[in-house]
Amino acid sequence: MANSHDHALWLTSLFPPAGWLKTYSRQTLNDDLFAGVITAILLVPQGIAYALLAGLPPQMGLYASILPPMLYAVLGTSRTLSVGPVSIAAIMIAAALSTPAVSGLGNAVQSALILSAESGAVMLLMAVLRMGGLVNFISHPVLTGFTSGAAILIIFSQLPHLAGLKKAACGMNFECYGEYLQTFNTAGLSIGLMTLSLLMVFGKPLPAFLKKAGWQSASVTAVSKAGPLLSVILAAFAVRYFKLAELHGVAVVGHIPSGFAGFSLDFFTNAEKWRLLLPYALFIALIAYVESIAIAKVTAHFRGEKIAPNQELIALGLANMAAAVSGGMPVAGGFSRTMVNFYAGARTQMAMLIAAGLLALIVIFFSSWFETIPKAALAAIILVAIIPLVRLDNIVHTWRYDRGDGIAEIITLLAVLAVGIEEGIMLGIVLTILSHLRKTSQPHIAVVGRIPDTEHYRNIKRHAVQTWNHLLLLRIDESITFANINYIEEFIEAQLLRQPAVKHIILIFTSVSDIDTTALEVLEELNRALQSARITLHLSEAKGPVLDKLKKTDFLNHLAPGKVFFRTEDAIRELG
Amino acid sequence: MANSHDHALWLTSLFPPAGWLKTYSRQTLNDDLFAGVITAILLVPQGIAYALLAGLPPQMGLYASILPPMLYAVLGTSRTLSVGPVSIAAIMIAAALSTPAVSGLGNAVQSALILSAESGAVMLLMAVLRMGGLVNFISHPVLTGFTSGAAILIIFSQLPHLAGLKKAACGMNFECYGEYLQTFNTAGLSIGLMTLSLLMVFGKPLPAFLKKAGWQSASVTAVSKAGPLLSVILAAFAVRYFKLAELHGVAVVGHIPSGFAGFSLDFFTNAEKWRLLLPYALFIALIAYVESIAIAKVTAHFRGEKIAPNQELIALGLANMAAAVSGGMPVAGGFSRTMVNFYAGARTQMAMLIAAGLLALIVIFFSSWFETIPKAALAAIILVAIIPLVRLDNIVHTWRYDRGDGIAEIITLLAVLAVGIEEGIMLGIVLTILSHLRKTSQPHIAVVGRIPDTEHYRNIKRHAVQTWNHLLLLRIDESITFANINYIEEFIEAQLLRQPAVKHIILIFTSVSDIDTTALEVLEELNRALQSARITLHLSEAKGPVLDKLKKTDFLNHLAPGKVFFRTEDAIRELG
Repeated sequence: MANSHDHALWLTSLFPPAGWLKTYSRQTLNDDLFAGVITAILLVPQGIAYALLAGLPPQMGLYASILPPMLYAVLGTSRTLSVGPVSIAAIMIAAALSTPAVSGLGNAVQSALILSAESGAVMLLMAVLRMGGLVNFISHPVLTGFTSGAAILIIFSQLPHLAGLKKAACGMNFECYGEYLQTFNTAGLSIGLMTLSLLMVFGKPLPAFLKKAGWQSASVTAVSKAGPLLSVILAAFAVRYFKLAELHGVAVVGHIPSGFAGFSLDFFTNAEKWRLLLPYALFIALIAYVESIAIAKVTAHFRGEKIAPNQELIALGLANMAAAVSGGMPVAGGFSRTMVNFYAGARTQMAMLIAAGLLALIVIFFSSWFETIPKAALAAIILVAIIPLVRLDNIVHTWRYDRGDGIAEIITLLAVLAVGIEEGIMLGIVLTILSHLRKTSQPHIAVVGRIPDTEHYRNIKRHAVQTWNHLLLLRIDESITFANINYIEEFIEAQLLRQPAVKHIILIFTSVSDIDTTALEVLEELNRALQSARITLHLSEAKGPVLDKLKKTDFLNHLAPGKVFFRTEDAIRELG
Repeated sequence: MANSHDHALWLTSLFPPAGWLKTYSRQTLNDDLFAGVITAILLVPQGIAYALLAGLPPQMGLYASILPPMLYAVLGTSRTLSVGPVSIAAIMIAAALSTPAVSGLGNAVQSALILSAESGAVMLLMAVLRMGGLVNFISHPVLTGFTSGAAILIIFSQLPHLAGLKKAACGMNFECYGEYLQTFNTAGLSIGLMTLSLLMVFGKPLPAFLKKAGWQSASVTAVSKAGPLLSVILAAFAVRYFKLAELHGVAVVGHIPSGFAGFSLDFFTNAEKWRLLLPYALFIALIAYVESIAIAKVTAHFRGEKIAPNQELIALGLANMAAAVSGGMPVAGGFSRTMVNFYAGARTQMAMLIAAGLLALIVIFFSSWFETIPKAALAAIILVAIIPLVRLDNIVHTWRYDRGDGIAEIITLLAVLAVGIEEGIMLGIVLTILSHLRKTSQPHIAVVGRIPDTEHYRNIKRHAVQTWNHLLLLRIDESITFANINYIEEFIEAQLLRQPAVKHIILIFTSVSDIDTTALEVLEELNRALQSARITLHLSEAKGPVLDKLKKTDFLNHLAPGKVFFRTEDAIRELG
């Protein structure tokens, strides 16, 4: 019985749907079907919009919304995470593709496929090395600062599209910008603003109104989430009906090939691009993974489910590989798409399988319908999705709670805006790790004395304790390593200056679980220096494994006449 | 009185000689004079040899032995550290100068001066930012692995010189190597081997013999340390007398301009080189600083002196700046030169002032004497100095004591040999920091219970304690940060699976001195998840500053009905 239970656990960890398939019911299917349809309705305009944001043909966003979420559905541990093209990754792709070295090699589609394959490979490598935990070292303030900065960049990239402006090539010629701004397309801007208004109405006022009018919650969700698709269909219809593209020069999505790209491994051949894109793929993988886990955890917490970081790395890694071979851009778990899926009532990943299936049908049969979508309408959709990610209020909040975290958040945000996306997140991570290293290199050390009439030894700063002028009792509250041994050495030297009568130092090792090579060598030197100053070093309460390790070296011999005492009390009896 | 004492301390910290000048005596001067002469005798051949090792003209090593040690003498905190050209920095300079990008810009002398200025600037910047402590993150095993690897590279670079071989340009043509090896110069090789034998005799057998013969220790040192100078003078004399350069093609040092380079700031102009060389300067500064501090500490320990890391950064930084303006290569504290100085009886930096002064005289009046030194003899001097730095025995030693440290040492050594000097040390540092981050992200957490009939709460694993099925008492033994909060969360989740009847979790915060933003946000999410599972979270024994910080947020409100208990005992009385 225990054995079959173990088997089930093992199966669930490799194939998470095993966990929900056995109790899957008619009612669950109904819920998932509804959520799947709603999510698919959002995914069409979002997929096209994010592909254009990344500077790629629209179909690459649609392809990325089919096979990758299917793979995640059968391998991922979150039941509601929706995987596909996301805005932050899209702007990181745009940044990578627009570097002179990469764009000089041409064929942006190929470069994007390489990015998908490489970021997938990076995730799988992280899974193999079990490095999922290392992404914990991107702190929340750094991540929020990064997201805000990237979102601001996205907003500025979309404003010209919203106004129907063509690309500016003015450089530092400011007069040129004046002329450029006057070239905005009235028809384009009108459509952009109308879409924006429609989306805002669908966002909050309409659902609130319908609820008041007594509609069922599911219906309200369905209508509200149809906003994006409805508005782009309206906009596309307007463009077609009034011939806005031909007569008024409104920029539209343009040709979308129907059907699939077909599986292809052509992108494998360009070794030079693989090398150039690797650092970008690394950051895309890192951010995609961190954001996906964060979103997955939020929804999992609501339902008491459990996210397994390493399995997530495998699922997301293979999803990105699938994006590469099926002609899609890199993917991650997206915030808005997951929330739509969750609030539409998705119970399991069946919802995403249904959504992806619907999308496949749309790509096969209806893709030409989307060719006249004006770019201004897509810009409106991106703006509505992205503006909530700019969280300047959060900076104030963080600053008030923890000054250091606030500074890290501001620096990361400014670096993203001023220097670049990858550089910003890199700087944020390095700053956080440096400040963490500095903190961990200062362990807690207590000068202790005996609580009178007991065998308890406590911090002299907090307790009324008995002390001896010729004895220095130090309790080191951490393992001794290369990172903190210099601090410990300096602490002892400073303490000796304050207490010049000391003849014996007793290091109390209750909390020391390990002494590494560097620490041992510094302790050896310290012991030599103390001996020439006629001060004897002793140890007490050392744990078994620490003593075993020390016995392999000459340290304990060099300590003599210093001793290793079993209890601090024994040391006091002999030396006190 | 206290005030004048403070003044003296302040003066000594900025101008360390103030510490020894006031008690400077006739006897101290005698000692320093003797040590200064001995050290100067070593510095001439070593300076020339290390300049050639770096691929630079011989005088750059001599210039680096004059002004830089003088500056260190008045600013450094070690009384015996000898600053000048060193072998490890020399091979790093050679590596930097031979990269295609740098060598393509020509003028190796200018590049070397830029390296001196830049590594000096890096050290001063580190001093300003008080980052001296960060170099503690180069662990001893990584440093030893790096030194061994660099020393092996130096040995292989010197073997052809010892055999009198010209530069090979065979690439992958192995037949060519066969022919190349047959071109060795018999006269050159003979001189190389003779110098090597002489140095080895002067190294140990001769001093041992003289001591037995009843010579005074000081005389033995003087004779023994004169070995290098004596052997190169002999070799130079042989070359001149037998016309070995003209008749037998023995490679010699060649023209050394007499006098000084004159102060110059010409090297400031090449911005492209400054940019290209910066990463190399960074590593040279790092290694130069770490090695100098390590050597300074060894000799300081012997005499109970104190090294101030930040003042060392200033002294070494300005010494490198001085090298740049006076035409010298980058400098650091050297092991063999410091040991010679120390064992020759140097008491203060006056010894190095004397040595540098003597060197200045030699450069002005006698530099032409050294032009016929055969390169084979210098190769022998480098080999004898460098072979002790290859410490393969240390790897076995480290491996036996600490497996992880042993692996780091081997990887660093292999990376230096296989990939490159900078890449090797970089990889070593990154590996050490990653493993440190992993360890610090797993704080100690104890499940505790009450020791019967007391108010003491202890680890259930180590003590016979009273526990409650519906209560989970956790003592977190570290500040809660972005680095460890995920581990803590997972620990709690795992514990709940083991103890499913839990209704209240009490986090005991005795050792928690801070909760950062990330940790707070994860605790908020955890609390929300626990509440939906009908488990209440409480805190106890939180320190004042932690509570003050939490009160600025809504966390304590969200905790309700969870409470903050002053003592764990209070929590048990209410919930137990």
